[in-house]
This record gives sequence, structure tokens and C-alpha cells, in this order.
Amino acid sequence: MRSFAEDTIVAPATVPGAGAISIIRISGPDALALTGKVVTLKHGRCEDAAPYTLHFGTVLQPDGSPLDDVLVSIFRAPHSYTGEDAAEISCHASSYIVSQLLSLLVGAGARLAEAGEFTKRAYFNGKMDLAQAESVADIIAAEDAAAHRIAFQQMRGGFSRELKEMRDQLLEMTALMELELDFSEEDVEFADRSRLTQLLDRVVDHVQTLASSYRLGNAIKNGIPVTIAGAANTGKSTLLNALLGEERALVSDIAGTTRDTIEETLRIGSSRFRFIDTAGIRQTDETVEKMGIARTIQKVGEAHIVLGVVDASLDEEALKQQIRDLVNITHFDQQMLVILYNKWDKLSGNKNVTLFNNFVLSLNNKIVTFPISAKSKDGLAALQNWLELYEKDKIASSEQHTMVTNLRHYEALVQARTSLLRVRSGLTSSCPTDLVAEDLRAAIRALQSILGASTPDVESTLGLIFSRFCIGK
Amino acid sequence: MRSFAEDTIVAPATVPGAGAISIIRISGPDALALTGKVVTLKHGRCEDAAPYTLHFGTVLQPDGSPLDDVLVSIFRAPHSYTGEDAAEISCHASSYIVSQLLSLLVGAGARLAEAGEFTKRAYFNGKMDLAQAESVADIIAAEDAAAHRIAFQQMRGGFSRELKEMRDQLLEMTALMELELDFSEEDVEFADRSRLTQLLDRVVDHVQTLASSYRLGNAIKNGIPVTIAGAANTGKSTLLNALLGEERALVSDIAGTTRDTIEETLRIGSSRFRFIDTAGIRQTDETVEKMGIARTIQKVGEAHIVLGVVDASLDEEALKQQIRDLVNITHFDQQMLVILYNKWDKLSGNKNVTLFNNFVLSLNNKIVTFPISAKSKDGLAALQNWLELYEKDKIASSEQHTMVTNLRHYEALVQARTSLLRVRSGLTSSCPTDLVAEDLRAAIRALQSILGASTPDVESTLGLIFSRFCIGK
Repeated sequence: MRSFAEDTIVAPATVPGAGAISIIRISGPDALALTGKVVTLKHGRCEDAAPYTLHFGTVLQPDGSPLDDVLVSIFRAPHSYTGEDAAEISCHASSYIVSQLLSLLVGAGARLAEAGEFTKRAYFNGKMDLAQAESVADIIAAEDAAAHRIAFQQMRGGFSRELKEMRDQLLEMTALMELELDFSEEDVEFADRSRLTQLLDRVVDHVQTLASSYRLGNAIKNGIPVTIAGAANTGKSTLLNALLGEERALVSDIAGTTRDTIEETLRIGSSRFRFIDTAGIRQTDETVEKMGIARTIQKVGEAHIVLGVVDASLDEEALKQQIRDLVNITHFDQQMLVILYNKWDKLSGNKNVTLFNNFVLSLNNKIVTFPISAKSKDGLAALQNWLELYEKDKIASSEQHTMVTNLRHYEALVQARTSLLRVRSGLTSSCPTDLVAEDLRAAIRALQSILGASTPDVESTLGLIFSRFCIGK
Repeated sequence: MRSFAEDTIVAPATVPGAGAISIIRISGPDALALTGKVVTLKHGRCEDAAPYTLHFGTVLQPDGSPLDDVLVSIFRAPHSYTGEDAAEISCHASSYIVSQLLSLLVGAGARLAEAGEFTKRAYFNGKMDLAQAESVADIIAAEDAAAHRIAFQQMRGGFSRELKEMRDQLLEMTALMELELDFSEEDVEFADRSRLTQLLDRVVDHVQTLASSYRLGNAIKNGIPVTIAGAANTGKSTLLNALLGEERALVSDIAGTTRDTIEETLRIGSSRFRFIDTAGIRQTDETVEKMGIARTIQKVGEAHIVLGVVDASLDEEALKQQIRDLVNITHFDQQMLVILYNKWDKLSGNKNVTLFNNFVLSLNNKIVTFPISAKSKDGLAALQNWLELYEKDKIASSEQHTMVTNLRHYEALVQARTSLLRVRSGLTSSCPTDLVAEDLRAAIRALQSILGASTPDVESTLGLIFSRFCIGK
């Protein structure tokens, strides 16, 4: 197998420090020869070593003194991560040894690898497609079972297989249509139009299902977005701090996309939530404030769950108005609104939960409510329990399906769907076959772009299909 | 070979994060069987795998879903790091995968290893002695060539060989003396006393050389101690900040041993220096201040180099007094005094460098001087150059010798020397042989303690020696 790259690259595959072992990875046509120049094996030579064997050896420095005793793992093309000849040198986890060993390998003729270059070579050498290569970083970043499962299935090629299957079906349709074009003067119809439409509908459904999975898939990968919204001074920031304070050790900062929203991720149970604190909603004529509110409304739109904080210590009419404002900015078809009666401990007058719940449910019967005190943390455990259970069900439902987690993939799927819907209407209308075929090709290109452009599958698959027709052309 | 431990231990050997690969190490009598329970190999079974081979496999979770694709390295007793059966599982560097994999291995019957337990097993299984085991942590921590070389030689057993050689010579002497005791009534003298004295002198010299190497060895390992001393307000802290400011990225904090001294390490050239800022020296009758000054004098005593900062803007007599104070607290047999004429840019009156240098050299002709300005950083480059060159020579001299870097080893060597000097005077005086033999045994125990008590070498070596005499007893 001829390798894609002509040079040999080297890089640490582990972080030095706090461990016992560091691994240096070397890959390329000269990987074993260069390793042999730097490591003197106890028995035999790297170049002669059998694949999948381990060898004890010593690294000597230019002055002849030993740098380290190491273990070398031997891999031979195409049976390695990159598909090239490769070695892994396991040395003591000392930053000094690692840097000296890298210098020696570079001195022997290797080049320091760029970020992701080993995986890039695996892609160019046909060991994995682009979607699989992208999943490697996701696997390493995955922090919980659901995110890991999705990334791992993608790396194993589950998503890719579905894409290839759809692509091949569309390719077959294209082939049939192009044959029709070639034989158009002879009035031959190779493809049964109604059968084509049925096939197309199945592909459109499949593309649609995959594209729809992005909303949940992305939430599993990056944390379920929960927006904290409400009027000014209802205690939104106090609520965020109270939620984070419960598990401060698991908190990390995510830079907000705008200066006036704060995002923090927090694990509750086995799920990760991404809490987004927003500017207070209020009626205003000020341009600047209007912009802030527009941004809040946008953030609310991105959320799976809206935590609507209201001030229960206000008089009844003011409180009802705060609830109405929250209902007005919620998209009930896509997200859940949770009304939090904050400062319930300061409750005044004749208000009670049941009375307000009746009012809330009269606005929309899917709204959930909790009386809480962000300050004293009363009621927060119940809220966290609800969040955990609500998302657990949604995440569990994802186990049966392929989930899309990558924006690039999602956009390609949306593009493919758009083209396919044009094909659909072209087939049923009197649209010329060559225009329909062009839309089909656009959809195929969109699906193929997820797998990567370098694989020459499209043309070869077309060739295969044509060869089956045996028309003698 | 019967292994020391009956249970099988597991731990990550690398730090997860920022890398491609994580390694999990498993060692003990059931290492391969337990690995086989958790990893399904593509070909064959872990238990049957040949030593020094690599195997592709998949880790399945309890629900049957795949956790990761891994590579397993197989080691068989006694040819492993620990001397036991062992495996290394190379997985994706995800903290989720690593923690799940550890859980699965523990679920299969392994135990999470304690800190250093793999090396402890290597020691108990006779793969390395205690001095070698201690060097493993030093190798990982070594940040420069000299510290690495010393740790590596120790791990390779260079230091241990010297210790064993001396121990065996002393054992032979003991054997001869004890034989004399046994045959004392027959007036036999097996050992030539003057030859014994010669042999002993060589051992004493060797022990002394090793013990003396600790001062430099420890400096190479932990940074060369440089104390910044001088009267109050001469600019000591400004100097420290100026030195560190040059290479801020390489600065790390070391908590000072006392609240009033600050330690910072800084690499200059290829050497690491440990700068110690001290409280100002001044004449005082206050008890608290006297304690501070006593501590300064102690810190000065620990230094290899004393940077004595004086205020060149003072009048001539005050300046000379500051210099005299510094000369008084310096141990010229062990350390170098560098007088820094600070604030030289503010020089007033008829002072000039030559004049002051003549005065300084009249106090001690080994003192080095530099005019500097800690504030403007003038003259600091010259000082750093000097520091680098001065230490380079000393460190280069260490290359030819075994260096002791460990306080425990140093103290054992000092103890051995004390006992040997008693043996020496016992041999030349009329001291009874059994008392001399007891001192010899104390010296042997001290040397043996560096190698570790568990190796049964002492008795077996004694046995070997006696067997050579063939007295028929």
C-alpha cells in the first residue's frame, strides 16, 4: 500500500507529568529506520522487528551517555493508526527526557507533527473518513456516557454507513436518470417514476431525522442549554450562583458569546447542563436596553429549558405580568418553561402556590412551577431533581438513534434536504430530467462532504452502477 | 519465580487530557486473566498471548456496548517492570474512558494501586534496590541534563554497585575478624592488620567522597541555592524581581521554609538556581529582629553563592560597613560572595569601582564584584553570565563522579563513615576484636540501608564468604 505522505512525523502522544510513562509516536515511511537510529534495541533491530511486537531498548545521547531505557512498539503499514509504518516509544514521563528524545528523532530526520496530523494521515490513507476523524477529538473530550456513546458510534463508522447507504441510493437514481437522458430520443424509460419517488421519500425522511437529532446531539456534547430569564432583580444571578455553589468543584467557565450573558456548565446526576444567565427583561424605550433584551430573547430561543424567575414578593398583578412576559418569549414547541417563584419565603398577602399554578396553567398547561428561595437555597434540590429526570428521559431516547453533534454535519444535512425536496417536486412536476439530476448531484455532494472529499467513492460507485447495465457503451 | 504480591493492581500510567493516548497499567498474578475479562482481543486471548506482543481489542461495557478500541501490551514475569505478569492497555486519552476502564478492571477483581506501588513491587521482587527505586521519581522530576544524568545513573544501579562493592569488602573484613574470634584460643591471625587498615582507608575515602558529593548533588537536583543578603533597603527584593522578570515564564514558587524568606527558582542557561531573598541585616537590640537576622545568617550558610547587595549611593564609610557585615557572615571555604554595588547609577561624590574593589579584595581576595542597578536592570546580564559560567564548571566536574542527591542516602553515608572511623582507630589501638567487628557491622548496616533492607544479600554474602574458607565448621 502506497502511503500518502513522504515524510515521517513525530509527536508526544501523552502529556508529561504526574504519570509514570510518556509515549512518543512516530509515523511515516522511515518511522522504523529513524526509531532504530535513536533507540538501540536489546535484541535485533527496529527495521527487522515484526509488527505488533514490543522491544526493550536504550536511547543514547550524542555524547554516548544513556538518556533513557524505553520500550518500543512496532506497527507496519497498513495495520497502524495512520496506515503507515509507525512506532510508539514508551519512556519515563519526564519533560526533559521527552524533549531530548524528540530532538534526537528530529535530528535523525523526523519532522514534528502538526496538531491532528496523525489522524489527518489516517484519513488520507483511507483508515477513516472525515466524520470518523472528527469524532476522535469528541471521544477524548466526552465527559459522560451519552456524549461518549455518540462519539464512539461515529468513530466506529455508524453514522458514515448511513450516509454512504443514502448516497449510494441517490447515485443509483442519478444513474438511471442519466441513462434516460442518453436514450431520450428512443423514448426509453428505465426508471419507474413512482418507485423513484418512494425511494426518495425514504431518503428525505432519513436526512430529516439525522438533521433533527442535532438539537439534542449538540446538547449532549456541549451540555444541555438552560436559560435563566426573568425581569431585573428577580434573583437570576443569585439562582445561578446557588446552583453552582452546590457542586463548585465541577464548575467550569465557558466564555459567554456576548458580554452580557454568563455561561457555566454543571453536572447534575449523569447529565451536563449549560446554564446561561441573561439580562433582565423589562419594558423599555431605550435602544441599548432593547438590544440587551433582544439578546436575552435570542438566548431563550437556543435553550432546551427556560428557567423563568419571578419575584413572588411582588403584588399579585406585577407577579402575573412577569409570568406573562416569560410565556410570551417561550417557544413551547421546542422548549420547556419552568416558572420559579423566587423569594417565596418573603411571601406577602393572600398568595398561595395553587392559586398561582392555576393562573400559570391557564396560560399554557405544559408549564412546570417550583417555589424556591435562591438566597436560602430552599427548593433547589427539587428543581435539580426535576432537571435530572427530565433530561434523562430525553437522553435515553437518543440511545436508539444516530445522533448528529457537529455543526458542519448538520449544515450539510440541511443542504442535502433542500436539494432533495427540489428533486421531489421536480419528479412530480414536468421539470426536465437534467435539472432534476443536477439537484440530485447537489444532494449527493452535500452528503459526501460529511465523509470527506478525498475519497473517490462517488465516481467509482457511479462506474460500478454503469457497469451493471451492460449497454455496450 | 514466585511473586511477592498475591493481588493484582491497576492504575493509570499517564495523565488524561491534551494527549492522544492514555495508558492503564495492570500488574500481579492475575493481570492477564483480568485484562482478558475486560478486553476482547481481535485474535486470541490475553492469557495465551506471548510476552512482548501487542494486541488489538475492544472493551465492552456491562450493557454490551463498546467503551473503546484499545491496544494491549503483554508482559510476563519476571520480564516486566514489576517482575510480575503485567499488561498495559492503551486507550483514547479521555477521562471518561479511563475512569470507566478502571472501574471495569476493579470490577473484574483488580485493586487500585497506591502511589508508587508498581515500583514498590519491582523492589520487593528484586527488580531494583531501594536507591534505584528512589531514583525513578527523580528521573521524572529532572528538568535539566545534570539532574537527569545523576538520577539515571542511580536508576541504572551505578551508585548501588559502588555501595555493594564497599559493603562486600567490609563483609569480608568482618568474616575474617569473626574467624579470628572463633579461633582466638588457638592464636591464629587470619587477617593481616596492616592490609586490613589499607583496605579500610580506601573504603573510608570512598564513603567520604560520596557523602561530600551531596552538597553539589542536592543543588543540581533542587536548584543551586543563591542567597540574596544585605542591609535593609539596599534593593534585595527589587533585585530578585528583576532577575525573575527576565524569564518570568520559567519561574515557579517554592514555599519558603520561614515566613520571612522567599524562594524562587530560575533557569539561567542550562542550570537551575534557587534564589532566596532574606530579611535585611542590621545592628539591633530587638529580640524579634535578632531572630530574623539569625535566620538570614542560617540561609546564607546554606547557599553556594551569596549575592551581597550594598547601597552604593550611601557615603563611603556606611558602604564599607555594609560590605564588612557581608564578609563576616560568609563561609568562604564553602561559598562564594558576590558584592553587588546596587544603585551605582545614583553614585555620588568621589567613589569609583576600582577604589572599592581594592577595599573589597583587601578583606578577602576571592570576592567577586559587580556594579548594578536592580531598578533599571543595568549590569544584571553580566551577573547572570557569571552565575551561569561559575556553576557550569562545578556541574561539569560532577560528570566524572557518582553524585548523592538524597538526604536519606547522605545521612546513611555519614553514619557509615562515623562507624568506619571507629573501626580504624580500633584496628590501630588495642581495642578488642569483637567491639571492632560490631562497628564494622554497623557500617555495613548503614550502607545496606541505602539499598534497602529486604534484599537478603548480607546474610547470603556472608554465607558465600564463609563457604570459601572451607574450615569444615
